[in-house]
Amino acid sequence: MAETKVSPLAPAAFPAMPAVAGVRLAVAAAGIRYTGRDDLMLAELPPGSTVAGVFTRSLCTAAPVDWCRDALVASAGHGRAIIVNSGNANAFTGAAGYRVAEHTARSVAGALGAPAHEVLVASTGVIAEDLPVERIDAALPSLVAGLCAPDRRSWEAAAVAIGTTDTFPKAASAPVAGTTAHVAGIAKGSGMIAPDMATMLAFVFTDMAMDAQTAQECLLGSVEKSFNRITVDSDTSTSDTVLLAATGTSGHGADRHITAFRDALDAVMMDLAHQIVRDGEGATKFVAVTVTGAAEDTAAEAIARAVADSPLVKTALAASDANWGRIVAAVGKAGQRADRDRLSIWIGDEQCAEGGMPHPDYSEELATKHLLGDEIELRVDVGVGDGEATIWTCDLTHGYIDINAGYRT
Amino acid sequence: MAETKVSPLAPAAFPAMPAVAGVRLAVAAAGIRYTGRDDLMLAELPPGSTVAGVFTRSLCTAAPVDWCRDALVASAGHGRAIIVNSGNANAFTGAAGYRVAEHTARSVAGALGAPAHEVLVASTGVIAEDLPVERIDAALPSLVAGLCAPDRRSWEAAAVAIGTTDTFPKAASAPVAGTTAHVAGIAKGSGMIAPDMATMLAFVFTDMAMDAQTAQECLLGSVEKSFNRITVDSDTSTSDTVLLAATGTSGHGADRHITAFRDALDAVMMDLAHQIVRDGEGATKFVAVTVTGAAEDTAAEAIARAVADSPLVKTALAASDANWGRIVAAVGKAGQRADRDRLSIWIGDEQCAEGGMPHPDYSEELATKHLLGDEIELRVDVGVGDGEATIWTCDLTHGYIDINAGYRT
Repeated sequence: MAETKVSPLAPAAFPAMPAVAGVRLAVAAAGIRYTGRDDLMLAELPPGSTVAGVFTRSLCTAAPVDWCRDALVASAGHGRAIIVNSGNANAFTGAAGYRVAEHTARSVAGALGAPAHEVLVASTGVIAEDLPVERIDAALPSLVAGLCAPDRRSWEAAAVAIGTTDTFPKAASAPVAGTTAHVAGIAKGSGMIAPDMATMLAFVFTDMAMDAQTAQECLLGSVEKSFNRITVDSDTSTSDTVLLAATGTSGHGADRHITAFRDALDAVMMDLAHQIVRDGEGATKFVAVTVTGAAEDTAAEAIARAVADSPLVKTALAASDANWGRIVAAVGKAGQRADRDRLSIWIGDEQCAEGGMPHPDYSEELATKHLLGDEIELRVDVGVGDGEATIWTCDLTHGYIDINAGYRT
Repeated sequence: MAETKVSPLAPAAFPAMPAVAGVRLAVAAAGIRYTGRDDLMLAELPPGSTVAGVFTRSLCTAAPVDWCRDALVASAGHGRAIIVNSGNANAFTGAAGYRVAEHTARSVAGALGAPAHEVLVASTGVIAEDLPVERIDAALPSLVAGLCAPDRRSWEAAAVAIGTTDTFPKAASAPVAGTTAHVAGIAKGSGMIAPDMATMLAFVFTDMAMDAQTAQECLLGSVEKSFNRITVDSDTSTSDTVLLAATGTSGHGADRHITAFRDALDAVMMDLAHQIVRDGEGATKFVAVTVTGAAEDTAAEAIARAVADSPLVKTALAASDANWGRIVAAVGKAGQRADRDRLSIWIGDEQCAEGGMPHPDYSEELATKHLLGDEIELRVDVGVGDGEATIWTCDLTHGYIDINAGYRT
C-alpha cells in the first residue's frame, strides 16, 4: 500500500470514546496481506447480546455477507462476537469463500465457547483471491488473550485494524440521554478503493438492552438516514456491512428509552457516515446536496443523488467553480418530476437561480467564495411539492484518478 | 476556449462525404461567443422534405428542444431548414429563451420563404446566458447567400461550426444499397463539456423519399442502437438533439428500400455515436462493454451501462489495469438479475472469471496486453438468460478532470 496523506477533511483528532459495558475488543497482526500492521479485530459480546445487520444491496455479495445473513437468521439476531479482517475481502471466491467465512466463525466460536452462528464475520481487501484462513487461526490465541474493555486507545487500534486505504481511523460515540448507557462505533471505507480495498464497514455497540427485532428496526431506520445518504463515486462494494450489537449490560432497556436510543444511534451513524465521505478518495471538499420541493421524499433523494453523483458537478466543485448549469443538467437527468421554470438553486446562502432563470441578484463572486471553503452546501428547489432529502458527497479530483488508476500493488 | 489536443482516438482524417441531393449547407461567423471561427450552420431542405427528431430525456430541456418539439408537431414532420449555433445553448433562459429560438426560426423562415414551424433550431454552448439573437440576424444574409450543395470541404466546415470543445469534426456517410441515394450526417459532442458546452447534436440527411412517420420510426430505432448505447460520463445534456431530414430528391422511396435505408442510417448513426465517444473528454481508450446471459436485453443494457459508467472500472481501464473485480462490483450494483456463481468475465479474448471464480487458466499478462491497446472489449456473461447488449464508452483519466475542473473561460 502506497504511503497516503491524511485527508484534508479528516477530524483534528481521534475522538474520546466510552467503554461500552460488556464489550471487549482486541486486535492482532495476522499477516493476511499487510505486514507490520494489525489486520484482525475481534469484538466479544456477553451472552444474551442481540445483533442486527444491514448489508450491501449488491447482487454479487461477498462470502462473509452471506455468512452473516445466514448466522443472524440461525441465531434469531443474537451474537457473541464480531471478527473482522482487512487485506482480503473473501469476495468472488466461490463456494470455498463461504467455507472460509464459516471456518473463521467456528474458530472464534471454539475459542470463546459460543455457537458458530453467533459469530459475525466481515472481510475487506482484495477480491478474487483465496483468504489464507490459517493465518487467522494462527493469530487467534493471541487475539483472544488480548480481549479487554476498550479505552480510547483500543478503540483507535480497532478502527485502524479494520482499515484498508483509509487515511484516518473512524469512530464516534454518543451517550443515551436519561441513562448511563452509550452508543459507540467504528467504521472504515471511502470509495470502492484501489487496490480493490472495497467495502464500507461499520460496527456499532451499545450497552442498552433490546430485543433483536428492536435492534434491527433501529438499525434499518438509522442506516436509511446515514449510510444510505452518502456517496463517494456511486460505486457499491460487494461487502458493505453495518452491524449493531446491544449487550444490555447497562441495565437500561430500549423499551423505556427508545427515542433517546434512536437519537444516539442516529448521531453515531451519521458521524461515521460523514467521516467516510471525508475520507473519500482524493476528496478536498465535504458536500451536502439538499433537494426540496420534490413530489416526494424519495424523489428528492433521487434528484439529490443525481447531483451528488454527477462527475461534472463534482469536478466543478473541485475547482470551486460556481458552475450551477451542471446542477440543472443533473436535476434534469434524475428522471423525477421537476418544474424547469420554477427551479431555484443556492450555492451556500447565495441564490443562483430562481424561476428557471439566473437570479437577478446572483453574485458569482459570493458563490465562489463559498465554494473556496471545504464545507459546501448546495440546495435545489424543484418546485413541485414538499419532498426533501439531503445526500452527502465529496468532490472529484485528480487524487481520485491517482488512487484508482494506479496498478494494484 | 483553451487550445485542445486532438483526441488520440480520432479518425485519421475527415471522411469522404457525398452530396445529398437537395441539401444545401452554409456556415458563418456570427461572433455569438467565439471569435475567429464559424459558429452558425444552416442546412436548407427542398419543399416537401420530411424531418424526424429525437431529443434529450432531460426534464430540464433547453429552449431550442422545446421549439423543435413544437415545430415538428405543427409541421407534421416536415422541414425546410435546420439552423444551429455554437457558443450559447440558450438553456435555462426562461420564457425569453423560447422566444429567442422562435425568433431565430422566423428569421430563417423569412429569408428562405418557408413557414417558421418548418425551421428546426439547435444551440450548444454556455447555459443560463441570454443568446444574443441579433448577432444571428446580422449574420443571416451572408449565411443564406453562402448556401450550396455540399462537398467534403463544406461538410467539414459545417461539422466544425457546430462544435464546441470537440477536438475533431465528426461526419459519416453510407450509400443506400440498390439506389443512388445516400445517408450523410454530422455530429458534435463528447461528455457534458466545460465550459458547459453541453449537448450532443447530430444532423443526418438523406435524399431518399419517405413520409414523416417512416422517418420518425427509422430514427427512433436507430438512436436506440447508437446514441442511446454510448456513455462518456453518465451525464445528460439539456439540449441533446438528433434530427433526420429526408429530401426525397433522389427519387428512391423508402417504401421499396426500407431495409437498405435502415442499414445505411444505422451505419451512419453508429459511426457518429462512436466518434462522440472517441472524443470523450480525456479519453485514451475506446471501450465496448458487452453483457450476455441476462434475463432480458433491457437487463443486459442496464448491467452494461453500470459497468460502462463505473468510475472505478473506467479508471482501471485508463491504467490498463486488469482489475476485473471492479467489473464484478459494477454488475452487482446494477440491480438486475445475475447469478454470482455463474458469472463469467472476459477482457478481450482472455477469460478472467468463470462460474463466479477466477478462471483456472486466466493470464493477467494477456488481459493486460489487451488493455494496453486503445480499443478495449469487455464481456460479462451473467448466467441467467439470453438477454444481451453492448454499451460503448471511454476511460476516465486525468484529462477528464483537467477539462472539467477548469474555470469557465
